[in-house]
Amino acid sequence: MKLTVIGSNSAVPSTTRWTSSQFLLAGGKGILIDCGEGTQIRLQMFEIKLNAIDHVYISHLHGDHYFGLVGLISTFHLMGRTKPLTVFGPEHLDEIINMQLELSMTKLSYQLVFIVTDPNTPQVIYKDKKMEVSSIPLDHRIDTTGFLFKEMAHLPNINKQFIIDHDLSLEDINNIKNGGDYINVHGTVFKNKDITYNKFKPCSYAYISDTMYKPDIAELVSNVTLLYHETTFLSDRQDQAIDKFHSTAREAAMLAKSANAEQLLIGHFSKRYSDSDAFVEEAAPIFPNTTPAYDGLVIYF
Amino acid sequence: MKLTVIGSNSAVPSTTRWTSSQFLLAGGKGILIDCGEGTQIRLQMFEIKLNAIDHVYISHLHGDHYFGLVGLISTFHLMGRTKPLTVFGPEHLDEIINMQLELSMTKLSYQLVFIVTDPNTPQVIYKDKKMEVSSIPLDHRIDTTGFLFKEMAHLPNINKQFIIDHDLSLEDINNIKNGGDYINVHGTVFKNKDITYNKFKPCSYAYISDTMYKPDIAELVSNVTLLYHETTFLSDRQDQAIDKFHSTAREAAMLAKSANAEQLLIGHFSKRYSDSDAFVEEAAPIFPNTTPAYDGLVIYF
Repeated sequence: MKLTVIGSNSAVPSTTRWTSSQFLLAGGKGILIDCGEGTQIRLQMFEIKLNAIDHVYISHLHGDHYFGLVGLISTFHLMGRTKPLTVFGPEHLDEIINMQLELSMTKLSYQLVFIVTDPNTPQVIYKDKKMEVSSIPLDHRIDTTGFLFKEMAHLPNINKQFIIDHDLSLEDINNIKNGGDYINVHGTVFKNKDITYNKFKPCSYAYISDTMYKPDIAELVSNVTLLYHETTFLSDRQDQAIDKFHSTAREAAMLAKSANAEQLLIGHFSKRYSDSDAFVEEAAPIFPNTTPAYDGLVIYF
Repeated sequence: MKLTVIGSNSAVPSTTRWTSSQFLLAGGKGILIDCGEGTQIRLQMFEIKLNAIDHVYISHLHGDHYFGLVGLISTFHLMGRTKPLTVFGPEHLDEIINMQLELSMTKLSYQLVFIVTDPNTPQVIYKDKKMEVSSIPLDHRIDTTGFLFKEMAHLPNINKQFIIDHDLSLEDINNIKNGGDYINVHGTVFKNKDITYNKFKPCSYAYISDTMYKPDIAELVSNVTLLYHETTFLSDRQDQAIDKFHSTAREAAMLAKSANAEQLLIGHFSKRYSDSDAFVEEAAPIFPNTTPAYDGLVIYF
């Protein structure tokens, strides 16, 4: 997977940190997660082709997470896009977009599909052979969901020499690939784990957008490869975090630890803080492998 | 007056030319004219304080002219703005904005007033002691108005020595300032024009947003100090200009000439053209004082 941070600020954009958006390459798809104002400009700045976007996932209807969507959808049309676009997001998002398209008398050149997310129950919202996406209910001032993107495990490979030595049939191969042991004509059993290997390790990415600290998320994202968790505040503003339904760096680190995540990415910083070092300093003692987001950051995993 | 070009592209933003927006200082007010996506970021880049904005004028509901408005309105709120904001624009603009504020459960910290513009009849839509603003119906695919901003003429000054020599009373002074001649006790008449002068020359700015060439605009903006006129195309794409209800550089120059404008500013260039030189080359033989817009351009007049 490859993740590019498009915007990393909370609430209001600055000239260096724009509002929330990330671009994920996973399962052969281009995935835009949240779409703050100016995302289409930022994507150009980071040399990401707009047409690479297949899916858009919107966590909630606070403007810093979706005000750039209508512009992106319009630009796709003006560029003559023909491939369909699927937008996963909260109820009423389709009304906001469609109202603006109608008032500008725009009939899109491509099919635009909205899939409404359920803010209450975690569920699989997309699945194909290569990837599965689930929604994760969060705890914010308005209905909000996070998202978990999981690559599907590939079938294992069988040792080449073993195939030759035992002259395996297609039926044997399918059986072993699907987990079976091999028993030869003499009745000798070869355990599946001894004759197969996995070249491909499936990765996963969890996007935990605006939320209060919600410990039960950990179970839903257990063993995730990369966990993004918002850290609007430091612990010095714990009261404010609770009051505004946001999280601190400490809380994000606690969640990453209890989820047994491999890596933690933090962002959505309040403009009250001048740089992100203090966020890492607060998180790292609890979860050492913590990276602060900045606009343009790329992570391969 | 002082004009800053915030965005100068048509339809789709590039990294160097964002979509339509301009900031005008006139009559003691900060005036934002159109508000393409990312305007609030561009204003920061050009060091214009967001709180300097008193009025917003939106020409029409194509996204490249207003998709940044909802973000700006939200940011004002998040910054704790208290002074009212007046938005002049087409019917339904208020619905678009209010729907998004309601869905994010935002109750603004300041008063937001919408004034609906009439797309059919030119009319005065704002007036105070220092400035008058009129709407100018344009000819585009959807209802569109331009705007004319006129500083009000100041009362003239009276030559100081004349006041002393003739020991003018307050009544005399008021009478002369309002155009009267002065007649002294001997019956000698001093003509108004011989004893007064104007330090202040009132300026005007016309913003002619998206439109087909519409020669009768010239009369409405006659003798304007600075005329902005869109030039989406060059004459080599005259057919396309007509088809899409836009203007060419030649047509903008013709309008500036027949309006007897002092200066012409052109912009809203199609991305089909790589630079703006060709636009000036086409306009200048007809109207020499032509300036091409770029993001960040400042004009004092």
